[in-house]
Order: sequence, then structure tokens, then C-alpha cells
Amino acid sequence: MIIVVKRDCDQKQLDNLLKWIKNQGLGVTLSQGDSSVVLGLIGDTPKVDIDLIRSMEIVESVKRIQEPYKSANRKFHPEDTVIDVCGHKFGGDNFQIIAGPCSVESERQVIEIAKAVKKAGANLLRGGAFKPRTSPYAFQGLKGTGLELLQKAKEETGMPIVTEIMSASHIDLFEKVDVLQIGARNMQNFELLKAVGKLKKPILLKRGLANTIEEWLMSAEYIMAEGNKQVILCERGIRTFEPLTRNTLDLSAIPLLKELTHLPIIVDPSHASGLSRLVKPLSLASVGAGADGLMIEVHNDPKNALCDGAQSLRPEQFEEVVKGIDVMLPIVNKKRV
Amino acid sequence: MIIVVKRDCDQKQLDNLLKWIKNQGLGVTLSQGDSSVVLGLIGDTPKVDIDLIRSMEIVESVKRIQEPYKSANRKFHPEDTVIDVCGHKFGGDNFQIIAGPCSVESERQVIEIAKAVKKAGANLLRGGAFKPRTSPYAFQGLKGTGLELLQKAKEETGMPIVTEIMSASHIDLFEKVDVLQIGARNMQNFELLKAVGKLKKPILLKRGLANTIEEWLMSAEYIMAEGNKQVILCERGIRTFEPLTRNTLDLSAIPLLKELTHLPIIVDPSHASGLSRLVKPLSLASVGAGADGLMIEVHNDPKNALCDGAQSLRPEQFEEVVKGIDVMLPIVNKKRV
Amino acid sequence: MIIVVKRDCDQKQLDNLLKWIKNQGLGVTLSQGDSSVVLGLIGDTPKVDIDLIRSMEIVESVKRIQEPYKSANRKFHPEDTVIDVCGHKFGGDNFQIIAGPCSVESERQVIEIAKAVKKAGANLLRGGAFKPRTSPYAFQGLKGTGLELLQKAKEETGMPIVTEIMSASHIDLFEKVDVLQIGARNMQNFELLKAVGKLKKPILLKRGLANTIEEWLMSAEYIMAEGNKQVILCERGIRTFEPLTRNTLDLSAIPLLKELTHLPIIVDPSHASGLSRLVKPLSLASVGAGADGLMIEVHNDPKNALCDGAQSLRPEQFEEVVKGIDVMLPIVNKKRV
Amino acid sequence: MIIVVKRDCDQKQLDNLLKWIKNQGLGVTLSQGDSSVVLGLIGDTPKVDIDLIRSMEIVESVKRIQEPYKSANRKFHPEDTVIDVCGHKFGGDNFQIIAGPCSVESERQVIEIAKAVKKAGANLLRGGAFKPRTSPYAFQGLKGTGLELLQKAKEETGMPIVTEIMSASHIDLFEKVDVLQIGARNMQNFELLKAVGKLKKPILLKRGLANTIEEWLMSAEYIMAEGNKQVILCERGIRTFEPLTRNTLDLSAIPLLKELTHLPIIVDPSHASGLSRLVKPLSLASVGAGADGLMIEVHNDPKNALCDGAQSLRPEQFEEVVKGIDVMLPIVNKKRV
Repeated sequence: MIIVVKRDCDQKQLDNLLKWIKNQGLGVTLSQGDSSVVLGLIGDTPKVDIDLIRSMEIVESVKRIQEPYKSANRKFHPEDTVIDVCGHKFGGDNFQIIAGPCSVESERQVIEIAKAVKKAGANLLRGGAFKPRTSPYAFQGLKGTGLELLQKAKEETGMPIVTEIMSASHIDLFEKVDVLQIGARNMQNFELLKAVGKLKKPILLKRGLANTIEEWLMSAEYIMAEGNKQVILCERGIRTFEPLTRNTLDLSAIPLLKELTHLPIIVDPSHASGLSRLVKPLSLASVGAGADGLMIEVHNDPKNALCDGAQSLRPEQFEEVVKGIDVMLPIVNKKRV
Repeated sequence: MIIVVKRDCDQKQLDNLLKWIKNQGLGVTLSQGDSSVVLGLIGDTPKVDIDLIRSMEIVESVKRIQEPYKSANRKFHPEDTVIDVCGHKFGGDNFQIIAGPCSVESERQVIEIAKAVKKAGANLLRGGAFKPRTSPYAFQGLKGTGLELLQKAKEETGMPIVTEIMSASHIDLFEKVDVLQIGARNMQNFELLKAVGKLKKPILLKRGLANTIEEWLMSAEYIMAEGNKQVILCERGIRTFEPLTRNTLDLSAIPLLKELTHLPIIVDPSHASGLSRLVKPLSLASVGAGADGLMIEVHNDPKNALCDGAQSLRPEQFEEVVKGIDVMLPIVNKKRV
Repeated sequence: MIIVVKRDCDQKQLDNLLKWIKNQGLGVTLSQGDSSVVLGLIGDTPKVDIDLIRSMEIVESVKRIQEPYKSANRKFHPEDTVIDVCGHKFGGDNFQIIAGPCSVESERQVIEIAKAVKKAGANLLRGGAFKPRTSPYAFQGLKGTGLELLQKAKEETGMPIVTEIMSASHIDLFEKVDVLQIGARNMQNFELLKAVGKLKKPILLKRGLANTIEEWLMSAEYIMAEGNKQVILCERGIRTFEPLTRNTLDLSAIPLLKELTHLPIIVDPSHASGLSRLVKPLSLASVGAGADGLMIEVHNDPKNALCDGAQSLRPEQFEEVVKGIDVMLPIVNKKRV
Repeated sequence: MIIVVKRDCDQKQLDNLLKWIKNQGLGVTLSQGDSSVVLGLIGDTPKVDIDLIRSMEIVESVKRIQEPYKSANRKFHPEDTVIDVCGHKFGGDNFQIIAGPCSVESERQVIEIAKAVKKAGANLLRGGAFKPRTSPYAFQGLKGTGLELLQKAKEETGMPIVTEIMSASHIDLFEKVDVLQIGARNMQNFELLKAVGKLKKPILLKRGLANTIEEWLMSAEYIMAEGNKQVILCERGIRTFEPLTRNTLDLSAIPLLKELTHLPIIVDPSHASGLSRLVKPLSLASVGAGADGLMIEVHNDPKNALCDGAQSLRPEQFEEVVKGIDVMLPIVNKKRV
């Protein structure tokens, strides 16, 4: 960590700062320049509170050299983490496709879709039981019943289940769920992160809608710091000024994260754009960018034309996406088993 | 609500859509144009799921005419809501100043600051006991003990207490807290919003760091829909591309919110910029913009030069801000009592 | 175009508005709702000034149904525009790779790189002669001399030249340039757009760093309205809050633009991220998203390790990217000839 | 400037970098840490190309200690610059109000408004003759004729004129204009900046819609580097995700700029929000934030209710804003003469 001290700083304040640094168990080097004094901190700097230092009167600016995350940091764990979900592997040279309905609506619906996506080549089943909604008046999901219906679909198809948890107080209900998803709006719900960090299940951590890559890795760190190292990151688009898509999918994040962390990273192209007709090109783009998997919404309502064209694909459209992905995987040295 | 249907839409899909609209208990008008069909929905449209409609294949675009929030909407509640906190009124022509330390650190610290800010003219005491931190390795607050120390400071000074709650499971600990704060990162923690909506205490709802004004009002609506109408909004800066300030304070939001809602709205200039030397100009600017109050961080550590210059002001700097505010209040027809 | 008029609007103001609409040569339908009056405008609405209407006191909101661009609009020109640059075709099922140095520095440098990228498979040569720089103290390019050196490289290799123009007053210097590039910072330099709109040369129009897709198409419209229909769009990343990349590449824009316009669209992955090690994954991602081409920076300075690792690739790294692209093209039904 | 070099960097590359730094005429210090090597550059670092260094393979990150702007930097020019426009002073403890119509439409219109705003207390007259418009089909201003009409209004009222220039090729037409405005979309039109830098007239430089404060000061630096030191900055809102206002007025920029630069800084609250009913609160907020002036749109069309409610105020509304400002000025130690 490097601290630039103002050129007109008070010597007593500087002495106080140096003393405080040493009290933190850190070493310090000091370089006197024309217009400023530069301090270099040596030791366990990820634990240092950078905001506190930045706020000091004599400090002009601070810069981390080491990343503030440790367990998630590739520097300290060079090999890819590979997470096994009932035999389906995330990370390394593996590629996984998670598919299913936005919301679980009925036993028949979820089982039909589960069978359809399995036939089309999906590896895991997704489906929302607890639904975070902007409006208190909107449908909030079937909750516990939804989880039971997902369980039935798993029994029918053998596909592991991925579904969202919104509160630590619901954890008992998720006992049979294979992968717990933390949604974008809860990415910095630190109490929830700590709670799922105590579990022995893989956690799918979505990026918050206006969170930086570093903040995202710090949220992964919250989970890992409690002992749970099975974190799968999921890029789902960030908030920008562009109104034509719901979010802007940040695919540069994929190769960047591959450098910064050893954790697997997948992409959700359905929520990112909010437009089903963008799912195929953005899925192929995600494979090209180096993602370890995709999570895609599929619905099965051919009779009711109402929802057609949603962010959800029809099963036959999904099948076409899977085919395109499978042709591309060898180019990026990935495989699906 | 207006729905623009694509010009080449299938008649059967259009009929399905019309049927679905009527099943929602809504009326509908239809205008045929050259290049599109425009549907006008009549009735309780705030309850309609706009995302669902937008996702339909035949829909080109959708537009709300009525806002999706009801309890928070000034159209249905033209008078300002005035919230009374132990005799201190938020809203109408009242102005309140909340001040205190970022974190509660010790009994002596919080009582000294409480006395200092009261002397300087603050109306309520703030102080963090549960602290949301980006890093799991950073100080997370004194938690329950912090709440007890705030209680002592209240007993000493008579000032009501404002402090943040991070989880519904902590509600019992907050029994003696006067105003519960929902932080920016939890603005869309819907489980927490529902929980505080069941209380009979004022809630200070901070704007999320990348949330629109409409989403913010929808989060207020979550609290109000559970029965708790005492919501105070707090603007604290939004995330933008500008790196020199931690956030960009959105003061246009103040006069806009005054039109859209009857709820009181205050400003936190300390967290917005992260720089104490910006607190005075941004406080006066907030008064000019029409805010109903301010929440300002103050520390009392003249000996330890370390934290000096933080986003927190020293008591004497705070006093100067209060003086400036008091001169300005008559210009905007506000008073402090 | 749909205008929502406030429910409490003055009848005289409404009459004035209706009269004004008719004076614009437009028809109008009027629907009276409970809480508002909705006007539907019929006719040549792309020419209507939406900002003027939005600003009227009685107007609550306005919404376009037709896009404001006409020449660039796929609705009025369903077939892909194919632009021929010395036999190299942009658009349709064609894919082009433009490559070359960031700046033209010397005759030897540009000719060496030109030969290297041609050998590696590039179709066109890029190189900056006039360089827009944030700082007046930074190198601004070789200007006219740079254009002459590019011309020599073209003579040596036969590759057409793409280079940036920064002012209408320089147009005469660009006579022998094959494709004129308008940079991101000049995307709304309307005087420059009008000037290049009078030429008979293809224009490569980069997206402005904070411009919406609609504004971008309106800038293409400026060029096309002057008679020049040969516009190639180039996505190069938008400005967001994420600090780890210089810009956030918006690949969702590619499939969206394919719906909205018939113009070809290419991607610049070098400038988007500012990191050479992201160029390969982002190139493959761009192909997956459906782009019509790529523009990639390549340098040839193996002796001087200084610049290595820049946003520019070395020729052998570029060759590897080209190989990956060529394997992918059949999956997206594109070809390079 | 501080350069952090990767821990696993090649010694030869490091030697090359050190040699290159010395060739730039800079001194360098080297600190070896556990995980990286930190270089400190000493000398005229504002002229160093930070992007070039950042792009080097062995560089992990770079950080400026000195700002890259010099002429605009308060460190090298501690006193406020005061710019005199026909006796009206910008900067120091002076406050100026610029007012007038969005566009010049006719002699009668501009003279009537000029008289009205003068009577209400405005100091300078604004009015658009050359209008930058997103659409090529929208009204582009009266151009040369508009400038002549502004000149007539000046003769009638004695008020100096502020109006926008869009191209260096128009400079001759602006001979009698008192203050030349560079609009937001041209903030990085470097050819235009260099051209007005050669004039001996004050330049009003608006902030670009997605430009950082540092980039804005670098554009001021472009003008100043050519010899013209009379630059007035104008904050007019930045682009964010919030859809309810056209832009988000960034008032934190005012006190920040007061630290970074000696140049005067004014605010345009009319364009920022696009809503006339926000002009008064945002004007008072700007005064509170420490601005040196305001530029406000006023129209005079009481008969034609059409435009009423636009971002432009009516003269009587403007007069009320001026009264509020004048009451506030003493609180911020400013005066209007």
C-alpha cells in the first residue's frame, strides 16, 4: 500500500500517522519528493482500512498494491478451483449449462421444462421459488412450495437444482437445494453472505447491479472467510446509461476475473439484456470471452403465446443455443461432460 | 399504461394479450396506427407487471402513465407527511439536523460527541453500531454493545437515536432505538424492508448506490405496504464514473421527490463525497435544494490527529455548518425548533 | 408518438397543443382516461422535436413509437447494407479484420507492421496520423506526414487505409484515405459529421463514450442525410463505474443494432479494455455476438520491450487471434475472402 | 508519479523501463517490496504519458501524484482568476447571472427577453445562434443572423453576449461576441479548443456529459496552453442511470474545483435537469455549493402557452429566482455589482 502525504503536511501529524502504521504491525518506507512524501507500507496490508487512511487530513491519496481479497485471490491459489455439483464440474476446462424457468409456477410446469431442457442438453436446473421483486405488489414466488416442486423435478430428471435464497432465516428450507444463489440485489447483504458462508454447499454469487469487480470479489471473500470455499461467480449485467437493454453485460469481466481469481465464473445472458432474442448471440459471446458456464431462462408455454418472446427462450430455441455452444467449446478449450 | 404492439403482430397473439389484460380486471382502448397498434390500459395499473408485458413477443414497448407506487405517491396524499420523533418533526416546514460519530467506539466517545453536537445545535444523535463493510476483515461495529452505548448517550443528552439495522433477526435489539436506518446496500433487501414495515417506528431509508428514484420509492412502498407509514428518505449520493468523489450527490432528486411523494427527504453530505471539506458547501446546497434535514458525521478526537480530515467534521466545524444552515432556512421557508 | 397530458391541464393549453400538432402537418387521436389525456400523433413524427414537447407545462411525458432515424433504420431498408472498400466488403455475411499500429511513427515502422498484419491475415490497415489526446502536452500524431506514410504502406502491401479525421478543415489531406474514422470524442461533432457526409468515402463512426445506441444512430443519420450512405459503426466501449477496464465493451449493442439498422457494425477490442491480454477473448466474444468485423491494434517492436503488453498485440499474438476468429466464423455464418 | 512493477518482472524489461524514464529527463527512486517493486518518478511528470506506462507488460499499475494540468492548477496559481467581461467580473467574491433564450428566434424575441432579464437583474445575455442538435432534422439555429440579432440586443440593453461556437471555421463570425461558449458535446473537440485558445476572449467551457473533472481541466488546459487564460468552467450535469432528469447535476464538483483550480466556475441548472420547475431549487443549491455564477434560460412567450413549462422560465419566474439568489449571496461571501 502506498500513501501520498500532502507536501505542506504538519510534521506532528505525519509522526502520528507513522506511529499508527507501526501499531498495525506494518513496516513502512518513506521517500521524500519535491511536492510530496510517499510512504510504502509493508506487511499484511489487505487488512488495512483504506477508507480510514484516505480520510486523514494529511493524506493526498492512497493506493493498494496488493488486492484486498485473499482467499479469492489467484496469487495465493494459482490453480483453478473446480466445484463439483453432483458430478457436474464448474471451473478448469469444464463448461456447464444451467437452464429452467424464471419462476416455479406449478408441478407440471417445472417438470415439463426440466425434462425439455435436459433433453436439449442442460446440465443443471434453475427455477425461482423466492423472487426478489421491485414492487411489493408483484408476485413474490411460491416460496417453500416452490422449493418442493424443484425437488420433485430433480427426482424426475436427476438434474441438480440452483435457486435463490433471500434471507438467512430461510436456510433450513434450502437443505435439499444443490446450489444456493445470492441475487444481485443481495450481493452486499453481508449478514446473508456470512450465513451461507457457514454452509457446505456451492454458492452462486451474482454481481450487484452497480458493483465493481473488486467489491464482487470482496463479497466472495465474505463467504470464503466463514469457511465455504465453493463460490461460483455469475456476471449478469451492470447498470449504465443505455436504455435499450435492461443492463449492460460486462463480458470484459470474464477474462479479467480469470486473472484475478481462481473461482469459476458463469454468465446469465437472459437477465442481462431482458430480451430473449439477444440470448443466443450473448451466449456465444460469453463462450468466446472464456466463461465457465451459462445460466439461461427457458419456458414451456407454446399454447399461451402471452409470454412468448420474454427473456425466456422456448425449449426448441434453447436447444439451438446449446448446439451453437457445443460447436464453439473446442475453440476455447472447454468441454461439457 | 400504454402498450405499443408491433405492426406485424400476429392477430391471435394480440387477442391473447387483450384477453390477459381483461383477466387482470383492466379496461383497454385500442388505437390502430400506420406502423403499430397502441393499447391504453385503464384501471389499477400500478399492480400490473410491466416487465412481463415488455417481455411479450408482440410488444414493442410499454410505458406507465401512473406511477407504480401508491402509498408513497403525492397524487393520492397531497399533504406533506410530518413524522414526529420524540417531538422533533420531519417534513412540512420543519428542518432537522442529525449528527454524531460514524461508529460508536466507546461510552466516553459517544457521550462526548453527543454533548458536543447537541451544544452545536443538532436535534438527533446518529452513530453506527452495526457497520456494513465491503471487507470481511474490516471492523464491523460494536453491535449490541454499541446500541447500549447509544442508549446511554440518549439518557445523558435527551437526543433521540438514529442507527442502522442490517438484518431482520436483530430487530429485538433495536427496541429502544428511535429511528431505524436502512443502509444503501440494503435498499432492496426486501425481507428486511418487510420486517421493518411491521414496526411502529420511523424508518430512515437511504437511497441505494445505483438505484433510480422510482426504485427508491418502491422500497418505501414495501415498508408502507406492511402498515408502517413513517418513512424518511435519505439521499446519499449515487455511483457514477467520476473518481474524485466517492459518490455523486444527486440534489436534483430533492425537488423531484417533493413533487412525487409526500414523505420527508433528508441528505447525508458526509457519505456522499467522503470528504469532510465538502460537507459545508454540500449542506448549504442541500438546504437550497429544499431538503427537510441533514445527517452529518462528527468526531471528537482533537488529540489524535489521525482521523482528522475524515468525512467527519470536528465539533467546531460542525457548529459553523449549523450556523450557516440556520441563516439559510428562512430563505427556503423552513424552521428548526 | 404518444403524448400523455396532465390530468389537471388547462383546456386552453391543450387546444394550443392540438393546434400546434396540426400545424406540423400531423394527425392526432385523443383518448381521455381517468387520470390523464393521451394523444397519439400520426404522420412524419421522426421530424418532431421530442424535447420541445417534453418541456411543455401540460405534458406529463412523451414517448416515440417510431425511431427518430430514417436512413439508418432497418424498417425502411430491410436488407443489410454492404460497403465495398477496394474489394473488401463490410456487412452481410462478410467479416473484415482491420489491424495496424496505434500511431504512425515512421516509414519503417508502419511498413513493417503493415506487412506483418497482412501476413497474419488482416484485410485493411489502420494507423493514427491525427491523434486526439486528453492532454495538450501529449504526442498528437505525425499529421499530414503520417497520412503520407500510410499511403506508402498501402502502396507496398495493397491494403486499404483506415485513419481518423479530427476536423473538417483537414478533409483535403484525406483524399487518398480509403475509410475515414470519426473518433468517439467527435461522435457528436455535428459540423464534422456534416462535412464527411458530403464525401463519397466510407466513414467508420465510433460510438461516443457515453452515448446511447439511439444517439449513435442519429449521428450516422447526420452523415447519411448529407448523401453519404456508407457508414460503418464501431463499438469501442462505454464509460461506466468499473475502474479495472478503461471502458466497458457493450457487446449487447451488436445484436440490438442488427435489428435496428442495416449498417455494418464492427468492434474495437483494443481501445475498449486498454489491455492487450483481453484482446483475444473479446475478439472471439465479438464474433459470437455477431459483429461484421474487428479493428485491432498491433505493434512490431520486439527489441524494445518497453511497449510490450500495451493495448497493442505483437504480430505473432495477432496471428493467433486471427486463427481463432477464422475457426469461429462458420458458426455465425460469416466468411472472410 | 508512482509505478508499481509486477513481482515476477523480467530484469531486462525493468532495466529498459528505467532507461526510458531517464531518457524522459526524469529522476527515479526504486523501493523493493515483498510482492512488487515501486518506482517513484521525480521531475516534470505532468508531461509523461500515463497510458503508455500503464500499457507496459511489466507494469501492474501507475498513479499520478501531481495533477496532469499546470496552467489551470491552483497549486501553481493560488489566487482566484478574475475574468472581466465588459465590467462584469467572474471569480473571486463576484457572482454573475447570465440569462436569455435557448435559441435566438427573431429580433423582437431576443430584444424583449434581453430587456426582461436585465430588468429582473441579469448581468449578461445568453442566446443560441448555432445549435447542436442530436437530430439532423431538428432546427439548427439562425446561425450568422442569430449572432447579428444578439448584437442588436446588446446595443439595446448594454448586456454582454454569451453564445456557443461549434466550429473553428466560424470564428470570424464571432468577432463581436463577448464570451464564446464551448458546448458539452465539443468539450473534447481538441481542434476547436486549440482555435479558441488563440483568441483574446473569455471562453465558457461546459463539462462534457460523461467527462471527469480531470478531463474537463485538461480541456481548459488545451485553451490555456495556446495563450488564452480566460476560461470560465460551467457545470451542466452528467449522464447517469437516473431517467427522471435529463442529466444529474454534479454540485460536489463546485467545491472540489475550487480546490483544484483558480478558474471561475458557474452552473447551468436549466440544461442539467431539463425541467423549469427545478431551476429555482437548483439555483439556490448552486449558490450554497459555492458557484461563481449561474446561466439560466428564460423565454418571453406568455401568449403562446405552448412552450410554457419548458426548461426555460418565464421572466417573472426568473425574477423570483434572482431575488432568492441575492438574499443568499452574503451567506457565501459573494456579491453582485
